[in-house]
Amino acid sequence: MIKFYDLVGADHARPYSPHCWKVKMALAHKGLPYELVPTTFLGIREVEGGNATKTLPFIVDGDNKVTDSFQIALYLDAAYGDRPTLFDGEAGIALSRFIERWALTTLHPFMVSAVVQDIWARQDEENQAYFRESREKALGRKLEEIVADRDARRDAFLKTLEPLRQTLGYQDWIGGKEPLFADYIVFGALQWPRIMSTFETIPEGDPIHGWFERCLDLHEGLGRTIPAAA
Amino acid sequence: MIKFYDLVGADHARPYSPHCWKVKMALAHKGLPYELVPTTFLGIREVEGGNATKTLPFIVDGDNKVTDSFQIALYLDAAYGDRPTLFDGEAGIALSRFIERWALTTLHPFMVSAVVQDIWARQDEENQAYFRESREKALGRKLEEIVADRDARRDAFLKTLEPLRQTLGYQDWIGGKEPLFADYIVFGALQWPRIMSTFETIPEGDPIHGWFERCLDLHEGLGRTIPAAA
Repeated sequence: MIKFYDLVGADHARPYSPHCWKVKMALAHKGLPYELVPTTFLGIREVEGGNATKTLPFIVDGDNKVTDSFQIALYLDAAYGDRPTLFDGEAGIALSRFIERWALTTLHPFMVSAVVQDIWARQDEENQAYFRESREKALGRKLEEIVADRDARRDAFLKTLEPLRQTLGYQDWIGGKEPLFADYIVFGALQWPRIMSTFETIPEGDPIHGWFERCLDLHEGLGRTIPAAA
Repeated sequence: MIKFYDLVGADHARPYSPHCWKVKMALAHKGLPYELVPTTFLGIREVEGGNATKTLPFIVDGDNKVTDSFQIALYLDAAYGDRPTLFDGEAGIALSRFIERWALTTLHPFMVSAVVQDIWARQDEENQAYFRESREKALGRKLEEIVADRDARRDAFLKTLEPLRQTLGYQDWIGGKEPLFADYIVFGALQWPRIMSTFETIPEGDPIHGWFERCLDLHEGLGRTIPAAA
């Protein structure tokens, strides 16, 4: 059975990583069973006996070890070609890469800037120390300063989602009539703040909110098995 | 033979519309011959005897009349399924829609704001009057005011192209190993200022510049048959 190392904070029952959620949805999409291994930031160095990966998600499937959510999706689609596709062919792979880069450069920076302190708050003490030091070094400011003006910045952020909003005016899913990995890429970026913060990223009434709710319903409500942060 | 109504300015030998260029590349991609009908803004009302379309591109293929570049690409792929595909399947269509909405909300507003006065300058007198009045009404300012700070705004614009730039770090074409309609969507948005303005939109050295040059080489250098504005 596939072993799936999934990022968690202090509560091991609340996995939250955007990249791990992409993989969790991909595994469900393909109907593949797996053994979940909850792993904290500091636990990553111990994965598979050590030095196996520097980041999560990470999967072990027999002799195959794969890191990076997009690589894992590619691996699953190739290795389990008889199950529902995540990409629907070569063009689907190529264009999903654009969606990934769009999500990483548009959604992720705002999400970090809005909920990084909430993510810190939901780590255990040891991981809090690691997280604060590494993130404040990378982002150049105190976590509290980074998130301070998140409400004021939200409208400008929501405007940058216009390509997604308009796309959903043409079709129910980013992938078209049915969800594909492209949907899970963006889903992960919204599931992450939903689980770790009470900050509202996408307001009700926004078509993107409606699409996200549909994503939460997928695969027998997999996304809802972790309640929103309270 | 397909009749293709293509937008031109004062020089009927220099078609420039981003949306018409998407269609021109799509027709070449599919290897379809066509009769080109150069049409000015004010000429649109006369297309096919009048009241046929409010916008270009517009094609007539036997009994089929199709407007809107994306609809035309869908039509061509369905009607000529034995020729090279523009979308590579349903996911390709759905994800190309995202590329279209991204281009329209990211590339097009900057291009308009940078070269709208140059587009005006390259119309005949009658079309200049129409273009200035309609565009100044829509944009709320004088054309000269709109373009005034285009140099100062370029760096911020170039940053918004990061998803495309990063995608081209993974693959030669937006469509993957070979160009697809998704490439032509973005190509049109860059070919437009290339033909109508001496303003440099994408600097040499940018991976997007390299990709655009490759696009200009496609289909026996179709994009280069119209020299850059001088």
